[in-house]
Amino acid sequence: MGLEHVLNATSVAVVGASKKETKRGYQSIKTLLDQGFEGRIYPVNPKEKIILGLPCYKQVSEIEGPVEMVLITTPAKTIPGILEDCGKKGVAGAVIIAGGFGELGKAGKDLEKEIVAIAKGHGIRLIGPNTSGIMNLESHMNLVGLKDVPKGHIALISQSGNMALTLITEAAIKSRQGFSYYVGIGNEADIKFHEYLAFFQEDPNTRAILMYVEGMRDGRRFLQQAYQTTRKKPIVMLKSGRSAAGKLSAGSHTGALAGMSEVARSAFQRAGIIVIEDSDELFPAVETLASLPHIKNQSVAILTDGGGHATIAADKLTDLGVNIPLMGEKTQKKLKALLPVGASTRNPIDIAGGADENPAVFADCIEVLLHDPQVGGVLAVGLFGGYNIRFSESLEFVEEDAAHRMGKLVKDVGKPIVVHSLYNYARPHSLDLLRYYNIPVYDSLEVACKSISVLSEYGDYLCGYNANQKFVFSAGQKANLRGREIFKRAHAEHRSALFEYEAKELIGLHGGPHFENRLVHSADEAFAAASSMEGPVVMKIVSQDILHKTDVGGVQLNLTTKAEIIAAYDAIMKGAVGYNATADIHGVLVEPMMKQGLELIVGTKMDDQFGPIIMFGIGGTLVEILKDVVFRVLPISERTARRMIDKIRSVELLNGFRGHPPVDRKALKKLLLTLSEIVGSYKIIQEIDLNPVIAYEKGLAVADARILLKKGEDFTDW
Amino acid sequence: MGLEHVLNATSVAVVGASKKETKRGYQSIKTLLDQGFEGRIYPVNPKEKIILGLPCYKQVSEIEGPVEMVLITTPAKTIPGILEDCGKKGVAGAVIIAGGFGELGKAGKDLEKEIVAIAKGHGIRLIGPNTSGIMNLESHMNLVGLKDVPKGHIALISQSGNMALTLITEAAIKSRQGFSYYVGIGNEADIKFHEYLAFFQEDPNTRAILMYVEGMRDGRRFLQQAYQTTRKKPIVMLKSGRSAAGKLSAGSHTGALAGMSEVARSAFQRAGIIVIEDSDELFPAVETLASLPHIKNQSVAILTDGGGHATIAADKLTDLGVNIPLMGEKTQKKLKALLPVGASTRNPIDIAGGADENPAVFADCIEVLLHDPQVGGVLAVGLFGGYNIRFSESLEFVEEDAAHRMGKLVKDVGKPIVVHSLYNYARPHSLDLLRYYNIPVYDSLEVACKSISVLSEYGDYLCGYNANQKFVFSAGQKANLRGREIFKRAHAEHRSALFEYEAKELIGLHGGPHFENRLVHSADEAFAAASSMEGPVVMKIVSQDILHKTDVGGVQLNLTTKAEIIAAYDAIMKGAVGYNATADIHGVLVEPMMKQGLELIVGTKMDDQFGPIIMFGIGGTLVEILKDVVFRVLPISERTARRMIDKIRSVELLNGFRGHPPVDRKALKKLLLTLSEIVGSYKIIQEIDLNPVIAYEKGLAVADARILLKKGEDFTDW
Repeated sequence: MGLEHVLNATSVAVVGASKKETKRGYQSIKTLLDQGFEGRIYPVNPKEKIILGLPCYKQVSEIEGPVEMVLITTPAKTIPGILEDCGKKGVAGAVIIAGGFGELGKAGKDLEKEIVAIAKGHGIRLIGPNTSGIMNLESHMNLVGLKDVPKGHIALISQSGNMALTLITEAAIKSRQGFSYYVGIGNEADIKFHEYLAFFQEDPNTRAILMYVEGMRDGRRFLQQAYQTTRKKPIVMLKSGRSAAGKLSAGSHTGALAGMSEVARSAFQRAGIIVIEDSDELFPAVETLASLPHIKNQSVAILTDGGGHATIAADKLTDLGVNIPLMGEKTQKKLKALLPVGASTRNPIDIAGGADENPAVFADCIEVLLHDPQVGGVLAVGLFGGYNIRFSESLEFVEEDAAHRMGKLVKDVGKPIVVHSLYNYARPHSLDLLRYYNIPVYDSLEVACKSISVLSEYGDYLCGYNANQKFVFSAGQKANLRGREIFKRAHAEHRSALFEYEAKELIGLHGGPHFENRLVHSADEAFAAASSMEGPVVMKIVSQDILHKTDVGGVQLNLTTKAEIIAAYDAIMKGAVGYNATADIHGVLVEPMMKQGLELIVGTKMDDQFGPIIMFGIGGTLVEILKDVVFRVLPISERTARRMIDKIRSVELLNGFRGHPPVDRKALKKLLLTLSEIVGSYKIIQEIDLNPVIAYEKGLAVADARILLKKGEDFTDW
Repeated sequence: MGLEHVLNATSVAVVGASKKETKRGYQSIKTLLDQGFEGRIYPVNPKEKIILGLPCYKQVSEIEGPVEMVLITTPAKTIPGILEDCGKKGVAGAVIIAGGFGELGKAGKDLEKEIVAIAKGHGIRLIGPNTSGIMNLESHMNLVGLKDVPKGHIALISQSGNMALTLITEAAIKSRQGFSYYVGIGNEADIKFHEYLAFFQEDPNTRAILMYVEGMRDGRRFLQQAYQTTRKKPIVMLKSGRSAAGKLSAGSHTGALAGMSEVARSAFQRAGIIVIEDSDELFPAVETLASLPHIKNQSVAILTDGGGHATIAADKLTDLGVNIPLMGEKTQKKLKALLPVGASTRNPIDIAGGADENPAVFADCIEVLLHDPQVGGVLAVGLFGGYNIRFSESLEFVEEDAAHRMGKLVKDVGKPIVVHSLYNYARPHSLDLLRYYNIPVYDSLEVACKSISVLSEYGDYLCGYNANQKFVFSAGQKANLRGREIFKRAHAEHRSALFEYEAKELIGLHGGPHFENRLVHSADEAFAAASSMEGPVVMKIVSQDILHKTDVGGVQLNLTTKAEIIAAYDAIMKGAVGYNATADIHGVLVEPMMKQGLELIVGTKMDDQFGPIIMFGIGGTLVEILKDVVFRVLPISERTARRMIDKIRSVELLNGFRGHPPVDRKALKKLLLTLSEIVGSYKIIQEIDLNPVIAYEKGLAVADARILLKKGEDFTDW
């Protein structure tokens, strides 16, 4: 069921309603009344008759009219009974304020499971427990108790009441933008992050979504939804709990698994989410995205009056991946006509004192800049808004007029302006006018830079969006009968992994390279197999009881003559028996010796938060040293596979280096897509490890392939 | 001459004094009068009699009393004449406001040279040109014209007037700390950054030095001075102009060479400077360092009320290299006695609502924490200061009392507290009280974290400081007669580089490894040389006319038999003549073939800003791919050499990897120190390139050694 009747409820019952002013059960009713909630309000308390002038009910099920939402302010142990009663009434949703659930050990976790089960049984959707509540700013359904929350177009989802308070306070004192909804997600016991996203995506009052996250219960579903949502509305997220101490802090108060690995970061960004690391930048980023058109060409002009600020801004924007293109001749000529001699018109554009007597020159320059197709947006830094303070009061009107013109330019040209002003603290009217026109103004240079950079980042994402990319597995559809047989046999034999030759067969089945090899059971068979192959061969023991083959002499390299092959076969068998006399030996694998090439690593793993992920990087003996590996959440599209290959630090190694030819990127891409399909086709796979993959100018070889199976996986649902 | 009479001048003449209110020549006299400058003020203008009640002089030389400082507000072209006149009077210093010098092309640069020469001739020290001026807040010598600059203990040196204005404004509205001096460094034509450092180091009113830098004219002298200064007082620096667009911006208004390479960053940090990258953190960092004791054990306790803030702070502090140790049992027990059930006492310490009715619990907890030897300082985050706003007005006094106690604790225990408060914007009195006790309060979490982290960074630097490290070369002292001969010959032969065998001899002379090799001039001599060596040999052409030896067959590897050696000699000669029939062939070098080992690179270069620097990293074919190289400014101490080796990303390669033995770090360290000494001993060296250096379990080999000479260097001053 959708969240329409929960977040847009037209009637609210407050369980635990109270006459005591210090109680949440009093404050929440008072807030609903004071703020003019548009629906019905029902206090519920068996001991009271009337609260704040409203008739009081003994229990929710006694209320005669329809009840969509219930706010429960009573302690944890009372919740199961109250929910059962709500079930009788058929309520749509309940906010559970109380803590003492999943965040507090085993007993709490059990109680949480119990209330989720009860709610499910009655079709009630739960917010919390352990939440500060929710707010719908449009209908004035304020179930949090915070006053003076500014109304606007940002939907806020927070996993910390303090951070919500911080963000709301910041909006109130620094911005003209505000909120459409606030959701304290609490323990995320029932309604998950992704369900809120789906709701806000369709909500007409919401233009951007702001999230503070410490841990997430279903990262994969969230990514799938975010991927849809960011096509329509920007999502800005700060995910904390990266460090050990941060995890400790998060775990002790949300009960969720925290952690912000590189995997998570790249997964969020791939889903189009703007990931923020500095909490000072969080509200400004979403404010800007909710207020201004995004930048389509990643290019910004910096306008300044004097140095310093522009130098810092240029450095910061460069760090943030924004281009600061040199202005063309035409534009420079127009700017020169406006500015004093000595002004710099290249970019950053330095007014060089030209605004001291006429700050309107800011608007003049911005007009020229925004009309240059090379310029995606303008960042104005320095003193604008304060010329009347610094130089002459009479400039106040000039600055206000310039602000009007800048506001209209944004509308007319459809490109953004962001302003940094040293005088923001003094709250001059001209800067407030800019805000009225949706132009954000910051007193921090770095925040102003970040703010315009997210317009570029989001614009870049939307431009590169490819509708054919999907985060949903085509599980089973392409699964091959033969593939299932391989896994079934391994499963029946209680193996924890496929044999190498089985893994290689599977890769071939799913469109990867075909590998030449033969399983043999005697030295003669080995020689026969080797004779059918070109060049020297390698022989490897095949046994589930021998994990580290090389340690027991189980791998013999570079064999050519019959004598070598027989000796190798004997050595392998002796080594195996010597290591484990009862080892179940499945045979010996004969393969052509692989030529030298660039050693890479390709594999898949299961991530705690996001499920299957794929890795690609430099392999062989260098893998541990270089740690040059890229991860992505599976499945991947062709484009993502290509980007993974380009993303490793040592990408030059792939391009042909010091006389070596470039490697076959097409074959590598194919191999990544093959693994993506294999993992999507067989739920039993825990991990795939191809190391090294040897890449050549044409094609590639896989020297060793391991596919591990999940433990205790049930195969009946295949 | 020192800067005493410049920065602490007791008399000031203003050249270009004016009666017009909009003129700088009026404003500066007005400011000096209004702010109560303690010395004499002399207006200078041939056309006026009296300005602002003061008698006006035709020229500086006419003034009867002593004149220490002159503020010159007239245009660039008037400066030479004015300085000549000042010279007659014997003034100590002059501030030149006018632009139009080094920042404006060739003519400007020439004019700048001219005025510097005039000043030098008369013993006048120049500030600027192209500066906003200077201020001495103690004597009220305000030659900038800015009003309301808060007085305090920070000396500010800025290369941008806007940034100075930003920092001064920030101090005025957000802090109780202020400035002892302000210096607008301008074009740094005469007085250099390092001279100001030396002055502020001894100034009793200055506790910390704050620098905004875009470019620097003598980086090496600056480092040498900073190295001395940071032992006594912290230096905080933001150096912008890293990016291409940032350099463009900086170059267009300071005329100095900008650039913030990794070399610069590591050089500044090695000299004990706190390098800041985010301008929002600049003032807070210096404010904190000027106000609080530093942290000796890099460990901080985070105190919070509720999650979110603490999680973010824990992440950020971890990123900043600060430890957040788990509290010991004893401390946890004491904290538990103060806090409600469910509070977390590990670290971060979460009050968990325990302050809602009694915010004094903050002081209680901090008292416990600061007395724990494991805790170097406390970062309190969240709502402190706002409990009276959020919960009950009556808590105002409780918070104020807690603030008093926290202030006294800092004094008594000698450990710092830094506070983040969401309610800082409301300016509650309790937070102002904290500032009174030198406890800084920030509304940005990230800024609060950075602020306490610099106390840890500076404390760590002071603890690790080693008085034996010197930045001064012992040039010439150790220079060996034989070494000079080598260079002299190369110089006499107009060579741009030493021959490989000369370079290797030089390394041996200065304490590095001795290399076995022989220069031969016939195949027979080659065989004789090879016979005296163990194992196969390598032969290389020695000719200054052949740069890329391998390209012309000039390097022959792995030679054992007489036939091989003769054939190799012939091949080398044929290749050389084929390439360049007139090539001056100096001979053929015979060396033992080097065993395989780990390939490293060691070398030195000349940096534009800092002079000679040394590099160390992974070498051979991997060098370009891995870009895993560390740089340091020369000379280096033993400790720095050791740290460089530990600092490369792939340091595990050195530790013995996959069965390879660890390499001989002692020999590597020795080699780095040898290069440091060589570069210090011969000014003629432009660059040294040892690549690859092959490191073994015991000892190392240098496969190729190149020492390039400076062009046009004069050798007479040897």
